[in-house]
Amino acid sequence: MAVYTDVAADDLAEFLKGYDIGDLLSYKGIAEGVENTNFLLRTSKGSFILTLYEKRVAADDLPYFLSLMAHLASRGVRCPQPQTNRSGAVFGSLMGRPAAIINFLEGVWPRRPNVAQCAGVGEGLAKMHIAGRDFPLVRKNPLSVAGWRTLFEQSAAGADPLQHGLHALLRAELDFLEHAWPKHLPEGVIHADLFPDNVFFIGDTLSGLIDFPFACNDILAYDVAICLNAWCFEPDHSFNVTKARAFLGAYGRERALTAAEQDALPLLARGAALRFLLTRLVDFLNVPVGALVRPKDPLEYVRKLRFHQTVNSISDYGVTASGQVS
Amino acid sequence: MAVYTDVAADDLAEFLKGYDIGDLLSYKGIAEGVENTNFLLRTSKGSFILTLYEKRVAADDLPYFLSLMAHLASRGVRCPQPQTNRSGAVFGSLMGRPAAIINFLEGVWPRRPNVAQCAGVGEGLAKMHIAGRDFPLVRKNPLSVAGWRTLFEQSAAGADPLQHGLHALLRAELDFLEHAWPKHLPEGVIHADLFPDNVFFIGDTLSGLIDFPFACNDILAYDVAICLNAWCFEPDHSFNVTKARAFLGAYGRERALTAAEQDALPLLARGAALRFLLTRLVDFLNVPVGALVRPKDPLEYVRKLRFHQTVNSISDYGVTASGQVS
Repeated sequence: MAVYTDVAADDLAEFLKGYDIGDLLSYKGIAEGVENTNFLLRTSKGSFILTLYEKRVAADDLPYFLSLMAHLASRGVRCPQPQTNRSGAVFGSLMGRPAAIINFLEGVWPRRPNVAQCAGVGEGLAKMHIAGRDFPLVRKNPLSVAGWRTLFEQSAAGADPLQHGLHALLRAELDFLEHAWPKHLPEGVIHADLFPDNVFFIGDTLSGLIDFPFACNDILAYDVAICLNAWCFEPDHSFNVTKARAFLGAYGRERALTAAEQDALPLLARGAALRFLLTRLVDFLNVPVGALVRPKDPLEYVRKLRFHQTVNSISDYGVTASGQVS
Repeated sequence: MAVYTDVAADDLAEFLKGYDIGDLLSYKGIAEGVENTNFLLRTSKGSFILTLYEKRVAADDLPYFLSLMAHLASRGVRCPQPQTNRSGAVFGSLMGRPAAIINFLEGVWPRRPNVAQCAGVGEGLAKMHIAGRDFPLVRKNPLSVAGWRTLFEQSAAGADPLQHGLHALLRAELDFLEHAWPKHLPEGVIHADLFPDNVFFIGDTLSGLIDFPFACNDILAYDVAICLNAWCFEPDHSFNVTKARAFLGAYGRERALTAAEQDALPLLARGAALRFLLTRLVDFLNVPVGALVRPKDPLEYVRKLRFHQTVNSISDYGVTASGQVS
């Protein structure tokens, strides 16, 4: 939510000479991204987002996720298109930091997604999974099941003070999921963070999937489970089966879930809930003094986890065992 | 440098129904303004800035400065044009706050203004002074000579710890200026804060004067003096007579300074230096714990004040007593 690095117009104009995207008309620092500095650029050729990557770890993964966006965009997925500079590279250096330019996507993210938008994200996610099939780079998911115990250990001591019994819940769930996590489901490129604030719509029409820093190779249906949690619960944390039916139905029309994926979905949804519960818990217990950004509520995901623990089959999500809308 | 108030797309779309500026395509919180929340909007009809006024005091002055921008823009001054809603008002209410929409101006502000840009701001300032002649509203300048003693009293105790002898300098200068401040110079609408970050250029061509919350009615040549301080010193605080000559020459070609204004300019420049020295000192001594924004250096204005104390006449600023470039 801040501009960490100021960029003078002269320096920016010099950087832009390396690109064929027109002359600089204006730029504004935008209040997005908690780790990077972002500017909205306007040039004689259009609008773009310039990102300066402030952290080393993000820079290491730049080739993966910038190439991925280029790959997906070239296959018709509505996502930002990284701009290639005159050297053929998708990122360069500005103010001593790795810097990349992507095209600007119109649209707004839905604070209160409706049923049509849940269907839209289902269709968009499936198309992204299909378009990613032949993407050649590989990045393991550091926040999949193998990474959760470390998060648990970082947050274990703070769990019960936050909610009585939470420590035991986390430990039992982690033990269960480490044992039961499926090993032979279809894998591919997943977004891994497709929350409503990463999906743009114009009206109810999806206009863009953004923010790929968590993208990686993992179980495709795990991405479906993440979205189920992120899109199909109400502000009071109750499950909205109408939204789930719309989301899963639209996904299935583009890419039918296999029988094994359907059987595994409740388990994957528990895993997705545990993953965000753990990272939110770690963030919550490590808020810097004076931070402007309020950490997200970990307990929201306790409620979601407990819901999925009661689910017997995919029919509880509003679709039949054959994958049809029930 | 922050978005203090989040606005949901639905609420924004509803607010925009009150305007005839097209359908919402996108909006981004922008990292500008230390007291207000600003969004860059894109609609089917163009680009705009939406401001939510977070402080009561700013809201009280909204009619003055929004009407002023409309007045100036209608007379050809390159400044933001407030958008009128369907009720004919230049501001409304959004998320419980006064909110206004202005058109977006292309251009970038110069971190290191060059001589041509100093001339550009001189011409632009004079045109603004001329265009403001028939503006009917009046707002006294709370930060003119009558307001400085209060600022001095708020910061007096912290002056010497910051720089030995500063307290005596401030007291003597304030005594002198309160006694010598001119009373019969031409007055009108002044911007009162026309620093480089409030002036946009495309190349060396001025494309916009922005940020009018300090605008008020005061001595016109005092506005010239503020700009002389803001534009014609180098980063090492040395006076650049070439820039001053360009600035004053360009101003004079649009609106010739009277003999009395020319005589008073060194005194007005001392006053302008004291005004920013005092407000920066107050800000410096009252930085909130954990503040992200570093306060501006008050001592920069001690250097400028001492320079103007050595000036004998306007010829020391690079122009002859007749107002011609020397």
